[in-house]
Formats: sequence, structure tokens, C-alpha cells
Amino acid sequence: MNIVAISGSLRKDSFNTMLLRSLSELAPAGMDISIADISTLPMYDQDAEVSFPAAAQALKDAIEKADGIIIATPEYNRSIPGVLKNAIDWASRPWGQNSFAGKPVLTMGVSVGKLGTALAQAHLKQILTYLDMKVIGQPELYLGPAQELFDAAGNLTEESTKDTLAKALGVLASRVA
Amino acid sequence: MNIVAISGSLRKDSFNTMLLRSLSELAPAGMDISIADISTLPMYDQDAEVSFPAAAQALKDAIEKADGIIIATPEYNRSIPGVLKNAIDWASRPWGQNSFAGKPVLTMGVSVGKLGTALAQAHLKQILTYLDMKVIGQPELYLGPAQELFDAAGNLTEESTKDTLAKALGVLASRVA
Amino acid sequence: MNIVAISGSLRKDSFNTMLLRSLSELAPAGMDISIADISTLPMYDQDAEVSFPAAAQALKDAIEKADGIIIATPEYNRSIPGVLKNAIDWASRPWGQNSFAGKPVLTMGVSVGKLGTALAQAHLKQILTYLDMKVIGQPELYLGPAQELFDAAGNLTEESTKDTLAKALGVLASRVA
Amino acid sequence: MNIVAISGSLRKDSFNTMLLRSLSELAPAGMDISIADISTLPMYDQDAEVSFPAAAQALKDAIEKADGIIIATPEYNRSIPGVLKNAIDWASRPWGQNSFAGKPVLTMGVSVGKLGTALAQAHLKQILTYLDMKVIGQPELYLGPAQELFDAAGNLTEESTKDTLAKALGVLASRVA
Repeated sequence: MNIVAISGSLRKDSFNTMLLRSLSELAPAGMDISIADISTLPMYDQDAEVSFPAAAQALKDAIEKADGIIIATPEYNRSIPGVLKNAIDWASRPWGQNSFAGKPVLTMGVSVGKLGTALAQAHLKQILTYLDMKVIGQPELYLGPAQELFDAAGNLTEESTKDTLAKALGVLASRVA
Repeated sequence: MNIVAISGSLRKDSFNTMLLRSLSELAPAGMDISIADISTLPMYDQDAEVSFPAAAQALKDAIEKADGIIIATPEYNRSIPGVLKNAIDWASRPWGQNSFAGKPVLTMGVSVGKLGTALAQAHLKQILTYLDMKVIGQPELYLGPAQELFDAAGNLTEESTKDTLAKALGVLASRVA
Repeated sequence: MNIVAISGSLRKDSFNTMLLRSLSELAPAGMDISIADISTLPMYDQDAEVSFPAAAQALKDAIEKADGIIIATPEYNRSIPGVLKNAIDWASRPWGQNSFAGKPVLTMGVSVGKLGTALAQAHLKQILTYLDMKVIGQPELYLGPAQELFDAAGNLTEESTKDTLAKALGVLASRVA
Repeated sequence: MNIVAISGSLRKDSFNTMLLRSLSELAPAGMDISIADISTLPMYDQDAEVSFPAAAQALKDAIEKADGIIIATPEYNRSIPGVLKNAIDWASRPWGQNSFAGKPVLTMGVSVGKLGTALAQAHLKQILTYLDMKVIGQPELYLGPAQELFDAAGNLTEESTKDTLAKALGVLASRVA
């Protein structure tokens, strides 16, 4: 089972990227999770579709080969980052060639505040529902506070969060046809 | 009265950019509308704030000098484009220096379909409310179908849309303190 | 295949109730659609759960026996009607006994304006995703203008809308395990 | 300054109603806050508008006399309660006689979980923006956990929450023209 994970943050020490890196050891047997690189995508512009960018095509190819998708998002101004929306927009194009269609998707997010990116994920799940994905509603993964979950090396160490994530990955596995 | 307008589309023949260009002749006396350029902004990344990009600072400066803001957005995947969210994220940073705070804002959008970017504007207005802006709720500007509003030279020619926009600009003027 | 349908409007000549009534003749073979009555539910109040109302229990029973759910909603003030939210709240209670969990759900709506209840359905789909339903993202059913779809007797007569609905019912059937 | 407050919960020991009761002692001088009773409203039904219910008219009258509005909402299934939406729908009717138009509004909510009704308030603020209200974006009031804020008699005792609320009431006062 091949899962592609996307982090909504480009920051080097991003808690959400740390979160994605922690998933492999919590995943059920046979689930392989690889993190896509969205940092080299240009800004989406319909005019640029004429020569579809290689980085955008690579993202589309990875998603199309995947059995399921995981997205970890920070919350910027109560929504998802522009960089994440830009990646989603590229992968949904050109018109009629939405690479996400039909795939199960698990969203999560970690924040230093108490909301755990709940409002960003609300927008994200609306977008993914429109993209005809099988959006996992439960469990919700509004995680944090971030500084209490990870050790200095960036490893997830908080046990109840590990349990919650393992359970969520099991749900994702069950949704893969 | 100095208004800064932002288009959510980078496309050369963008209907939403055409829409913004049509506003000056519909504006009440004394309202000056200038369109900000967001095409040269890098992807937001907190690490990049250390040397704040000149294009992002220029956008912040323009917004801070403005008496009010107009945003015209296309709808991508039932939300706003990544490029628009990215511009908003830059203008809201660094932490504690949100350039939008307290300013009245009018949102609008035009689409080839019948929704007129209503779902994108729903997300946009939530973001702008969080940013402590005075979000104008009425009139709503869900415009279109785009191909019936403009002539071949990109001029807005549909009379009832002109009337609606003129009224909306009057509301914006009334919200400027 | 047993489908329970809920109309968000109590109005006698409700277009959304008409829409639900039109579905049986468009449904794939073997799909039985019955409309639940939510008009006799009291206002939800946690104190009233002590003696759970018979009307609420009947709604829960019908939903639990169903293989899938259809909800047709009008749009009131850019969200779903209170009466529909109230019915959903009852069916999700008492705590831990959410009757909707795991079931596929198709949402639709018809309006006299051009949005076709798109903004109401945006809220509705968020609620249903939280309730762990399998929310169908495509096709979207933003229907209207209502007055052009039905004849004087309340029968759906517009052919392309019939085709769209038949296709959507097929998707619903495919999601029933 | 006359403020009308609405609680989204009918529950006798509702934390959100307690929250509204705590506001008077935190309000700036000259601000009078009265809580509207929405428990006797019938379910909204357009057919019932023919003889507009007395309870709905009383709610409209109170809102129209008010200089500003406060709404405290619980979160049911990641949105506002049906009972609250029903009250809002009544007050917005009949068509063209929206009693909320132009008034400043402050939303708040308290929950036993960590989200503080953030997702319910996201829906609520969208509805209120559509209703042409002056929606206060900052401060956000996502309060809780409820059981740590109030004493056994239902009095708000948590000092930082009191400070936050007093500040928010000051913002509301400043928005009253």
C-alpha cells in the first residue's frame, strides 16, 4: 500500500513535516509512506499550463500511483497555506485530469495553539471533497500543542498522540479499496 | 480615498483582473483604485522572513497606506487560488504586523460558471474577518457568466453588473472612516 | 437498497421536497427511497435527552436501517435551515450513538437564484464529514432555477437535471458497500 | 448602549448561557446587556410567515432596538445548533426585513473540549456577514475548557477569560456608531 504525504509547510523545522516523518513507524504493516516535495512548484497560472512544469507533473505522477493521500497542514490566517493550495491546484490540472479523484485522504495538523489547525482543515476538507476524494471524517487530528509532542531531534514522543495517529492510519488503510 | 485592489489570478487575460480594471470608471468621486502586483512574491516560508522579501514589503506598504481594499478572486477547487492566499499570508506577517487590520474590504469574483466564485469568497471572507478587516457583507458580488460581461477588448459592458459594482463601491466608500 | 431522504424545508410546496419526490423514478433498479418526516421533532435540548423523544428515535431508527442517505436542502442565510440542523443534531445523539456513522450520503439543493444552495451544502458537507459519513463530492448538485425545473403539478420535467440526478443516484448506489 | 445577547443553547445549565450572564459585570460603563429568549420560537417555515409568530416578532423588535448583538454558541456537530439557526432565520424574515442589518455583532463560545466552538463560530460568522452585520473579527473568543471557568454557582471566575471578555466588549462598544 503506497501512500503519498504532503506537508503544507516549507519551513525547515516545520512541526507538520516532523509529524509526517513520524508516521512510518506508526503505520500498519505493508503501508509505505513517502513525502512529496512541493517546494519547487511554480505559482499556478493557467497560462503556464501550455508547457506543464516538470515539478507539477512529477507531483501528479506520484499522486496517481498512490493508493491514498495524507496531508498535514499548518494554519495560516485560519486557512491553509498558499503553498499547499498551490500544490493542490497544480495536481488538479489540466481541466479534466484531476489526479486526486477517487483516492482516500487523511488530513492532520499540529499547532502551537490549542486549535490544532481545525479551521485550516475545515477549508482543506471542503477542497478535497470537491476533488472527489474519499475524505476521512473520523478521527479528527487537531494535534498539539506542538512543543509538547516532539523531542529536540524532532521525533514524536507523546504516547497518546502516537496512538491516535496509529488508529487514524488504520482507518486510512481500511478505506483503500 | 486610496484603494488597493488585488487580483487572485496571474493569467494575462484574467476576467478577474479585467473586472478590477473596470472599477475606476464606476467609482465615486475621489476614490482612486490601484492594482497591486502579486506575481513576483516568493512562496511564503517562515524561514524566509529573516530577510523579508522586497516584493512582500512593497505589498505591505501599499496596503498600509490604503484606506480600503478590494479583492477579486477566481475560484480554484472551491476555494481561493494558492497565489492569492500566499499574498495574503505575506501581508499578514511578520507576527503582530498584519497590514490589513482595521481596513474595510470588498470582495468580488467573476466566473464562467453560475456560482460567480461564491465558494471561494466564502473562504476569503473568513480569512479577512480573522485578519480584523471590516468585511462588507452586502452586496455580494458573484458575477458572471464572464464571457457575457466583457467585450473583446476586455471592457466591462454589461450594464446591470456596472450598476451593481457602482453601488458596491459606494458601500466601500461609506465604510472608510 | 434502502435509502432515507431528508428535506430541509417544511414548506408545503417546497421545491426541495418536490426534488426528493422526483428521485424514485430516476433511481437505479433496486434502490428504494423513502422520505423521513422531520416536522414533528422538538427543538434539540440536551436536557430533553433524558426521555428521548419518540419522533427523534423514529428518525434514528430509519437512518440506522438505511444503506444510504440523501439530503435536499434549501439555503437560508447562506447556510442550512435550523430545522434541518435540528434533525441532524437529534440523529447524532445521545453521545456515542451517532446514527449516521459510516453511511454514504448524497446532498443536493434547488433554489430560485443561481447558486443552487451551494453555500448551504458547503456547511452541510462539513457537518456530515464530521459525522463520519461517506460524503459524495461529485457530482455536485446545485440545481435551478427552481421555477424552470418543475411543472405545475410539482413534477420534475427538465431533462438535463433528470440526467444529472440519475447519474448521482448511480454514484450513491456504487458507494453502498 | 443597548445590547441584545442570544444563547445558542436551551439547556438549563448551559455554559454558554452562563457566559452571557457573566458579561454585564465586565461591560464598559453605559452598556446594558439583555438576554433574548429564543426557546418559544416555532420551527421556521415560510408558510408560517402568513401569520408571523408573536415570539418571532418579539425577537425582531428586540434586535431592531439594539445597538449591537452578542451571540454565544455551543458547537453541535462542528456547526451551530439548529435552535440558534432557527432564531436567526426568523429574525431575518420576512424577505427584505432583516432585523440584523448594519448592527455590530460579537460572537463567542465555550466548550468542554479544546476548540472553544471555533468551527461553529466559523459558520456563524459567515451567516452574520451575509446578514450585513459588522462582524467583529478580533479578538476571537474560543473559550474553555468550560469546567475550569465557572464556579459551582455558575459564576465566571477565571481571571484571564474575564480580561479577554472585557476587552472584547470594549471592541463591541467601539463599533457601535
